[in-house]
Amino acid sequence: MSTPKIGVALIHHPVMNRKGDVIASAVTNLDLHDIARAARTYGVHRLYVATPLEDQHRLVESIVAHWTEGPGGDHNPLRKEALALIRMSRSLTEAVDDMASEFGTAPLTVATSAKSGRVALSYGSLRRRIQKGVPVLLVFGTAWGMAEEVFCGCDELLAPVSGKNGYNHLSVRSAAAIILDRLLAPARDQE
Amino acid sequence: MSTPKIGVALIHHPVMNRKGDVIASAVTNLDLHDIARAARTYGVHRLYVATPLEDQHRLVESIVAHWTEGPGGDHNPLRKEALALIRMSRSLTEAVDDMASEFGTAPLTVATSAKSGRVALSYGSLRRRIQKGVPVLLVFGTAWGMAEEVFCGCDELLAPVSGKNGYNHLSVRSAAAIILDRLLAPARDQE
Repeated sequence: MSTPKIGVALIHHPVMNRKGDVIASAVTNLDLHDIARAARTYGVHRLYVATPLEDQHRLVESIVAHWTEGPGGDHNPLRKEALALIRMSRSLTEAVDDMASEFGTAPLTVATSAKSGRVALSYGSLRRRIQKGVPVLLVFGTAWGMAEEVFCGCDELLAPVSGKNGYNHLSVRSAAAIILDRLLAPARDQE
Repeated sequence: MSTPKIGVALIHHPVMNRKGDVIASAVTNLDLHDIARAARTYGVHRLYVATPLEDQHRLVESIVAHWTEGPGGDHNPLRKEALALIRMSRSLTEAVDDMASEFGTAPLTVATSAKSGRVALSYGSLRRRIQKGVPVLLVFGTAWGMAEEVFCGCDELLAPVSGKNGYNHLSVRSAAAIILDRLLAPARDQE
């Protein structure tokens, strides 16, 4: 099996608010920590934090610098390794371009969603593509989910993490952890 | 397959600080939300929040009441369903007793830990016991992990969620989500 070529993008614009309006959401500190720790655990190459808002770029860069260059890293070197995976991007396109320049070919962009009912890629199918060395960028939304134009701009849609009785209202932190485990955990871990 | 008889206990005492001293940790609001949402998604019966500190009981009860009886529930009924799973307990023993009275038999208590090297139960083995209808209480620590006496008081230890290159520093929120998915997700979901 090749080393997986995986990136994760956390989209803050364009996303929807509870009324379905397209907005830019604020970056959440704990999303960065939890998703970066899961990304580092499963060998993810980069965690892209996508927002066009300049003040959000400065905020995230100051958080990341605290842990990678400042006192946080001395206090907790394991957290430093995780937060070092974060890269800011202005859009999903910028994240795709960064992965393309890293791997020499554009990644397969795979949107995630809690909604069912659309034709979606199965976990087994995507896991096999990753194992064959296909670069993949997993795309996660924030707030009430990504705007339709983000889904239209992705190559594939991944099947939702479905629960019991149709309830699947996981946080993006939990959903990202579960999806990375399904796609990247060694098979023996699940037996 | 029987309906799973599963509880989750989140232990705030006795746990360890970074120096290995036994302490009581503070309850974290986002742990309650994220783990309750994952618990509801996978059909968990109860999320026990274990701490002997009276002020922490009052704090959690006010948070839960906001979402189950107060304005939070009107604002977000799905969150209400999740937070309604929370029960305070003074100790792991109290949580075990509550499950025993619910199911008529004491649950198998299964400790979780990021540390490897001990004899541990596999995911497949525990999943099969759950499918046979054995009541199981999954026990998660906070802060720098549960004190040794908690592990000694549990019937079994679950294998750690292992990552790439030995890095497995997940948040308890992420670890709980992954472990519930491994034990309770319909098999077809992972194909």
